Formats: sequence, structure tokens, C-alpha cells
Amino acid sequence: MHQKRLDAQAIQNMEQRHRTAFINTLSGFKSINLCGTIDSEGRYNLAPFSSVVHLGANPALMGFIMRPITVSRHTYENIVATGYYTLNHLSSDIYKQGHQCAARYDREQSEFEQVGLKPKLGDLHPAPYVEESPIQIGLQFESSIPIPINGTLLMIGRIIEVFFPEQAMGADGFLDLEMAGSITCSGLEAYHQTQKLGRLSYAKPDQALSELAFPAASHSNKD
Amino acid sequence: MHQKRLDAQAIQNMEQRHRTAFINTLSGFKSINLCGTIDSEGRYNLAPFSSVVHLGANPALMGFIMRPITVSRHTYENIVATGYYTLNHLSSDIYKQGHQCAARYDREQSEFEQVGLKPKLGDLHPAPYVEESPIQIGLQFESSIPIPINGTLLMIGRIIEVFFPEQAMGADGFLDLEMAGSITCSGLEAYHQTQKLGRLSYAKPDQALSELAFPAASHSNKD
Repeated sequence: MHQKRLDAQAIQNMEQRHRTAFINTLSGFKSINLCGTIDSEGRYNLAPFSSVVHLGANPALMGFIMRPITVSRHTYENIVATGYYTLNHLSSDIYKQGHQCAARYDREQSEFEQVGLKPKLGDLHPAPYVEESPIQIGLQFESSIPIPINGTLLMIGRIIEVFFPEQAMGADGFLDLEMAGSITCSGLEAYHQTQKLGRLSYAKPDQALSELAFPAASHSNKD
Repeated sequence: MHQKRLDAQAIQNMEQRHRTAFINTLSGFKSINLCGTIDSEGRYNLAPFSSVVHLGANPALMGFIMRPITVSRHTYENIVATGYYTLNHLSSDIYKQGHQCAARYDREQSEFEQVGLKPKLGDLHPAPYVEESPIQIGLQFESSIPIPINGTLLMIGRIIEVFFPEQAMGADGFLDLEMAGSITCSGLEAYHQTQKLGRLSYAKPDQALSELAFPAASHSNKD
């Protein structure tokens, strides 16, 4: 395929929506999570985020990018008001419902009802999980860090509860997202399933990599 | 599949490496990029990062998480010293080389030579791209934002140059990562190819979603 080059000026000259579409794809494939929250009047909210990142394992922290709070953002307001939220992986069964949650519904219209997903409640906190989601994570809000250059925020939460398919977890803690049914997204609106290439051993200088088994293989070895 | 639940205490009780493996998978599928830098003595460095996120399209900004600077981190030091770095998507052809770049080589040992990847230089800045990478992004360092809770840093850069397969870009700016050959990763060491599920229209309340064409389809429509 012929390689094309764009510099900063050429990117700046792109039509605004085209530039937004292009730049949103450049980071590569992304996680896609539905963030579940509840407001101070007990109403549920559900919104898709494709910027969730691992921040650390001890303590177990996750972050995601919140767009500038220049308009009312239900997810942000609910997290700050209640101190809790959930992140729920999308699967091929529910990605269309998940995408539809990005529509700007009123506070009175819960995305759960509008798109046809079922809220699930735990004992630890009031934020709703998505029942149909293969991996459901409950978080306690820690802090939001302003990113001055464009007014976005890094939202940080501590993992306090996780639901996942037991069979997808290996004896070494690795969770097989593909077996669980999680999917990935690209840009603002494309969704993709995955197919395993391999799982590689810890890299050291002057030592060849070896292939590690995925949990499915480990389970069948034990049979 | 049977659903398992772990709370904060159960996660805390996991063996440390198992917890690290588990928590690293929870954010979902991730981008996987090789970060190319040059030090003040002209030596190249290449290191994998799975935490690159989109921060904004205007200006075009990307971020990634840098682990605490409690030990010498060549990538961090080179970015701060020279002001430039590159991010290069991994493909199925080079993911093993990319993984091996995580090994702790000395400054004198360039990962390019150690793993067998070819540096490519542009005219705008001194940081090396990865010639074999399907999508190569040049960035000017903007700032690093400390994340006090665990000592990590959010590294922010402005996109100043992009190389990509021309055919993979649609008329609307969307870049088809799957056609380009980019892959995704999960946890600390698993790599996956992708398979398209669909591309969905902008979500609005009370309006049904429609399927958008991928660039390949757009191209063939024009034939």
C-alpha cells in the first residue's frame, strides 16, 4: 500500500469533522466501556468511553479522559456527587446499544431504558452495572486531574469490585478478554472482534521469547 | 460461563504478580505502540507502551502513562532532553520484536539493532520512526502531568507528522486500522488481530443507527 504523509499544517487544513475522525483513530485500537452512574435523585446514566487506561495495580487504579466540562456532563456530575461509578466492557451482542448511549438524552431518560440494557446493583455502592456486560468493574472515585492544554480531565478511580466469567481467568491472574467476549473499537464509531495472535513471555535481554498458554488451553490441560 | 466476583480485599489478597496480570487486563483491549526516541548522544531507543490515548483533535494531542521515574527510564529522559518522540503501531509481522523491546537493554544497546527493526528518520525532528510499522506518528513533547496517587505521569504530545497507508483512509478522514494492519493487545503480553463488526452512525435520541461503510468499501464503490 502506498504510504501517505501529513504534517501539522496539512492536518490543520483538514475539514474539521474529517480531522476529528482522523485524529481519533491514530492512537490505535481502544477499549470500549460503558460508564454507569446514578445521580443524587436516583436516576441512572450510562455513557460510552473509549479512553479507559490502566494506571496501576497496587493500588488498583484506572483512569479515563473526560471532555471539558463546558456543557452539562451527566457522568462527571454523578461521579463527583456520589463518589462511585462502574465500567462495563462491550461485547458483540451489545455494541449497538452501547453506541446509542452516546446520544444526548435528558436526565429523565435513562439510557438503560432507552437502549434496552438492564441495570444490575451490587451491595457496595449505588452505581449501576450493565447486566449484559461480560466484565463489570466497580470503582470509587479518587480524583480528577485537569489537563490544562485543552481543558480535558483525567478521571481516576480505585477498583473495589469486579465481575467476570470465571473460566476466562488463568491460574496466573491473566483474564482472557477474547474468551470473555469483550470487543475493541477504533476512532469514534468502529467496532471490532479480536483473534489471538499469541501471548509472550516476559522480555529479557539475550533471552528468546516463548509462547504462553491462554486460560482455555490451561483448563483443557487439567482435564 | 459462571460469573465470579472479586472485591477489593480479594484483589488485595492475590499473589502480587497474579494481581498485576489481572488488573492489567481489566481496562479492556489496548493500543500497542512503540515509542521511538533519541538521546543527547544520538543513540536510539525503542519501548512499547499500551496506554496511549486520544486527548483531543484540535490541537491534535495524544497522551500516554509513564511509570514512576524511580529508576532510569530512557524513554522519559530522551523525550525531556530532546523534545520529540514517535509512536509506531505494531502489526502482526512485528509484534514479537515489539514485545522484546520491553527488555532492559543498556543505553549502548539500541533496541532497533537488538530486535531487528529499522529506524526511519524524517525532516522535522530527530526521533526515529519504525520503518516496518503501518502507522507512524511524530510528536512534539508538550508537558508531563504528575498523577500524585501512584507517582505515574501523563505524557502529552502534539502530533506534528503522520505516515499511514493511503488506501486505509476514507474520504471522511476515518483511518481503517484493520486494513492498515495495526493490532491490539491485552494485559501485559497478549496480542490480537481484529475483525470488523461494524461502523455506526452518530448517535442521536429517537433516531435509529445506520451502518457506515469502511474505506475499502468506499474505494470499491468508486471503481
